[in-house]
This record gives sequence, structure tokens and C-alpha cells, in this order.
Amino acid sequence: MNESMIFEITVQSFQKGLKNLHHILEKAELHADIKKFPFENLLNSRLFPDQFPLTKQIQIACDTAKLCVARISGKEAPKHEDTESNLNELKQRIHSVLQYLETYQKSDFKSVFEIKVTQPRWEGKYLTGFEYLTHHAIPNFYFHVTTAYAILRHNGVEIGKKDYLGEMPFKK
Amino acid sequence: MNESMIFEITVQSFQKGLKNLHHILEKAELHADIKKFPFENLLNSRLFPDQFPLTKQIQIACDTAKLCVARISGKEAPKHEDTESNLNELKQRIHSVLQYLETYQKSDFKSVFEIKVTQPRWEGKYLTGFEYLTHHAIPNFYFHVTTAYAILRHNGVEIGKKDYLGEMPFKK
Repeated sequence: MNESMIFEITVQSFQKGLKNLHHILEKAELHADIKKFPFENLLNSRLFPDQFPLTKQIQIACDTAKLCVARISGKEAPKHEDTESNLNELKQRIHSVLQYLETYQKSDFKSVFEIKVTQPRWEGKYLTGFEYLTHHAIPNFYFHVTTAYAILRHNGVEIGKKDYLGEMPFKK
Repeated sequence: MNESMIFEITVQSFQKGLKNLHHILEKAELHADIKKFPFENLLNSRLFPDQFPLTKQIQIACDTAKLCVARISGKEAPKHEDTESNLNELKQRIHSVLQYLETYQKSDFKSVFEIKVTQPRWEGKYLTGFEYLTHHAIPNFYFHVTTAYAILRHNGVEIGKKDYLGEMPFKK
């Protein structure tokens, strides 16, 4: 049951969040079409001059998802070179991470409470897999998806909470 | 172990997120002092005219946290009247929810997979407690904390990712 919960709060939540992000980008594409400007004019948009622009927000959301599942399961994530410069390439980046997430199974997360996650800049310190996902990956993922959303919202794209949250699995 | 995980991804994560939000508001307070304008000038700030302003973003972040833990454990959350009109009242709102979260224990979440969460506007449909927290509460909580952050960032407050994520529980 533990592995099943971890799978749902990581793999499945990231899949849903990335699909919602893709959908939000398509709404922005439509907005650009209607207003007759190239979508790419939005890529360098940001809310303050020293903030990462839209492109980077999407790249980091993608990386947070792929690195989380890889790190908490002891795998190596595929590399992406951050060269996206248009909408199709950004959509492709999202698709690529969605495909990678598809390769995961519940049993990959058996050691989430024991596995040690570390990075060179942490100078030998570590977090357990579960700490890494609760303290870093989950809040960081939603931070970058929401910031991408906020940049587009600020630019007049007509998106709302439903676009961000996506469908709820309602039952009768 | 299940209840323990639920406790960590809800109660503890909301506590941390709300403390970080409180800290971000204190940085905004300092910014307003240095720039010599009343903090309250920020309360109606938003990224687009039909978006909820800063005050409402904070109120919804607070409500998302309290309603999540109450709904997935079958309790009734305390009511807040949304009358905050200055920084101290907003801080008090956050403190009030932090105190409420303190009353929770792991054992409150024993029925999270069976309990049915519903609302009048859902017209008889429901989500299980676990679905409610993964599909709604967690992404919604971080959405509103991040949007409050984004509004302040857009207004020149010097905050960064570390202020949003808070301390990591590193071990040697």
C-alpha cells in the first residue's frame, strides 16, 4: 500500500500536472492566434526582470517531475538539454517526460523511506526519498506549473483554476 | 504507516507551507518599510484585473489547508469570515490555521481511503479522502501560496525559491 500511495502522489500527480500544463499552453496558443501575435513572444515573459521566464518555468517543472521519480527510486533520469525555443519543442519536452513517467511502476518505490537522495551542492548531506518528495519535489513542481500559469494569466491568457487542476475523478 | 504518510503530506506540509507564507509576508513588510509605503497597498494587488488579489490568495491557502484535513478525517473545520484588511490580521489568520493543524494526529487519517468527501455544488458526486487530497487539496494549496508569492515578486519584493520551500531536513 505504501508504494501505491507514493506512486499516486508522484507519478500520477506529475502526469496530471504536466497534462494540465500542456492544456494551458494550448489555451495560450489559441490566445496568441486570436490576438494575431506569435506564441513565441510569450516565451521570455516573466513577472519581474530577475525571474526565470516562461520557457524555463516549463523546463524546471518537467525536470522536477522526472528527477523526483528517478531519485526516490534509485534510477538515472534521461537528460534534456534545455534548448527549446518554440511551442512545439516545449510540448515535445512535456511529452518526453510523460513517456518517461509511463515507465514507472508502484514497485519502483519500495525503498522510498530508506533511499538517500543527495546532490553535489549539498556537500555530503542527504534527504530520504520521502523527505525529498515532500519537502522539495511536490512543492517545487506545483511552484513552477503555477508560475508558468501566472505568467500567462498576467499576459491576458484566459485560463482559470479548472485548467490548472484538471478533471476530478468524481464518483456517484 | 499509511496514516503517518498522510499526516506528513497534509498536516506537516501545510504547516511548513503556511510558515513559509508567513515568512514571505514578513519580507514584504520589510520591503514596504524600506520603500516607505504602507504594506496594505499590496493587499489588492493582482496579476490581472479578474484575478483574486493578494488577500484572497492568502485566505484560500489557509482554507485549503484547514478544509483538507477536516474533510479527509470527517471533522468540521472552524469558520473564518474573510474580513482581514491588514497585515496583522492576515498573520493572525495563518496562526489560527496553524493552531488548528496542531490539533491533528496521525490516527485521524485512518479512513482516508474510505471516507467520502462531497460538496453541495458537486450534486451528489464524491471523491475519497485520498483522491480529494491528491487531486484537489495539495495542488490547490501550492497554487495559492505560489500565486501570493508571484504577486509579491511582481511588486518587487525580494523573495526567492528558498523562501518558498523553507529549510530542508538535511542529515549527515
